[in-house]
Amino acid sequence: MKLLRIGNPGEEKPAIVDTNGIWRDASTLVSDWSDAALDPTKLSELSKVDLTSLPEIAQDQRIGPCVGQIGKFICVGLNYSDHAAEAGMEPPSEPILFMKATSAVCGPNDDVIIPKGSVNSDWEVELGVIIGKAASYVTQADALDYVAGYCVVNDLSEREFQLERGGQWVKGKSADTFGPIGPWLVTADEVGDPQALTMNLSVNGHEFQNGTTETMIFGVAHLISYISQYMSLQPGDVISTGTPPGVGMGQNPQVYLKPGDIIELSIQKLGAQKQKVVAL
Amino acid sequence: MKLLRIGNPGEEKPAIVDTNGIWRDASTLVSDWSDAALDPTKLSELSKVDLTSLPEIAQDQRIGPCVGQIGKFICVGLNYSDHAAEAGMEPPSEPILFMKATSAVCGPNDDVIIPKGSVNSDWEVELGVIIGKAASYVTQADALDYVAGYCVVNDLSEREFQLERGGQWVKGKSADTFGPIGPWLVTADEVGDPQALTMNLSVNGHEFQNGTTETMIFGVAHLISYISQYMSLQPGDVISTGTPPGVGMGQNPQVYLKPGDIIELSIQKLGAQKQKVVAL
Repeated sequence: MKLLRIGNPGEEKPAIVDTNGIWRDASTLVSDWSDAALDPTKLSELSKVDLTSLPEIAQDQRIGPCVGQIGKFICVGLNYSDHAAEAGMEPPSEPILFMKATSAVCGPNDDVIIPKGSVNSDWEVELGVIIGKAASYVTQADALDYVAGYCVVNDLSEREFQLERGGQWVKGKSADTFGPIGPWLVTADEVGDPQALTMNLSVNGHEFQNGTTETMIFGVAHLISYISQYMSLQPGDVISTGTPPGVGMGQNPQVYLKPGDIIELSIQKLGAQKQKVVAL
Repeated sequence: MKLLRIGNPGEEKPAIVDTNGIWRDASTLVSDWSDAALDPTKLSELSKVDLTSLPEIAQDQRIGPCVGQIGKFICVGLNYSDHAAEAGMEPPSEPILFMKATSAVCGPNDDVIIPKGSVNSDWEVELGVIIGKAASYVTQADALDYVAGYCVVNDLSEREFQLERGGQWVKGKSADTFGPIGPWLVTADEVGDPQALTMNLSVNGHEFQNGTTETMIFGVAHLISYISQYMSLQPGDVISTGTPPGVGMGQNPQVYLKPGDIIELSIQKLGAQKQKVVAL
């Protein structure tokens, strides 16, 4: 299933795409795509519901972030070996974790706002994993049982804030609009193997990133198991699993976002995002 | 005013302490101490309500975290010059920011659970600042206008997870129960100057930390202004402002928490916490 949330920021309603591509109002089924509604068992039951009885929705409305009430937005650093190389860093021996502020979350096609004082705003197409039920100390063998689904994430990053302001990365990852997610939460059953998805990102029509989740250093099951040793994962938590090569910082000369730029990114089976870059 | 939340984890109800020390049910006034209820203007109106008409509550119930629906738990590193010295690090030239997972939040007197594989679990008494309304790019002069109130935080930390697992600190700060906050949210008007509060922490009756918020490198107004340049602050966000000297890592030889230990900590005007340390 493809789940989405539509409406104005903070007022999004749950919707669902039926097999004919028609958007249907899911408000009578769930209050939101959040918390207990994301339990894989609940989603499996939902997949048996006849969607044609649900009200059809026009497709000209804003799409919001595909998950509501995100508790944690956990990011994985340098998780593609060739991206680590372009960043001039050694591939890590275990996953590097950092947080993006949940206030950075926005819809997949919302404007991306360059924060005040930014000179090095950059892009990162990433596979997002949406947790469906609480997970603590889970094994890699069991880890994918805790996944509700997957989505596209643009892990926007201000490199000067990230790397030259005291060592912790959160400052460069957390500006408002630096976390577009969606358009869809595609349920795990429909995605299949999360390590076999092509992904790409272009700016103003020039393709900068073109990779596949096959080349992750630590795969999704490894990441969930690993993170769950350090903190409990909760329904609605999002894990952004790292980016393949081709970020702006890795170009020669480096390329950074400027007002007016158009970012387009997509992941196989998960849909596409398109953002206009604007000044504050 | 002193605001608190009582009841079982996840089911806490808002309450308020009246001038005679009686706990009163505030459910008819607010749905929770979260979001819009934390607006300083709303809190000011609330302070004029006659509390004696509210139902009295027994004081033998569990106290939960003093804020509900925390969006971000932002921590400040090395913010007391003598703590930086004991950690063997240079005092920072600008605030060091990192995140604690919101799933780590617990009540002030809940058991602290040592995570699996931990050998270096440590304590940190800290002044917590609770944001009352959205703040972006605010000046230091205006910053305190955005504060709902203050609370005691124990920023529990697993030093090996924090410092020897890839460089980002979040792994060592985020285990479940590593974020006791409360007992009270004491409103800003009742606290007055946040840079004039004594604080202390003992383990098994031995005092390890005894400091004052006077010796913060970056004060509360500076921190709010600074953080708001990198991310928007939202109602219910908590900023933990760093710890004075006396953490376990700073002892010679180092001292770390073990099952059965009792941690007691308090901050002037903000109340006291008491936690029993347990194994998982």
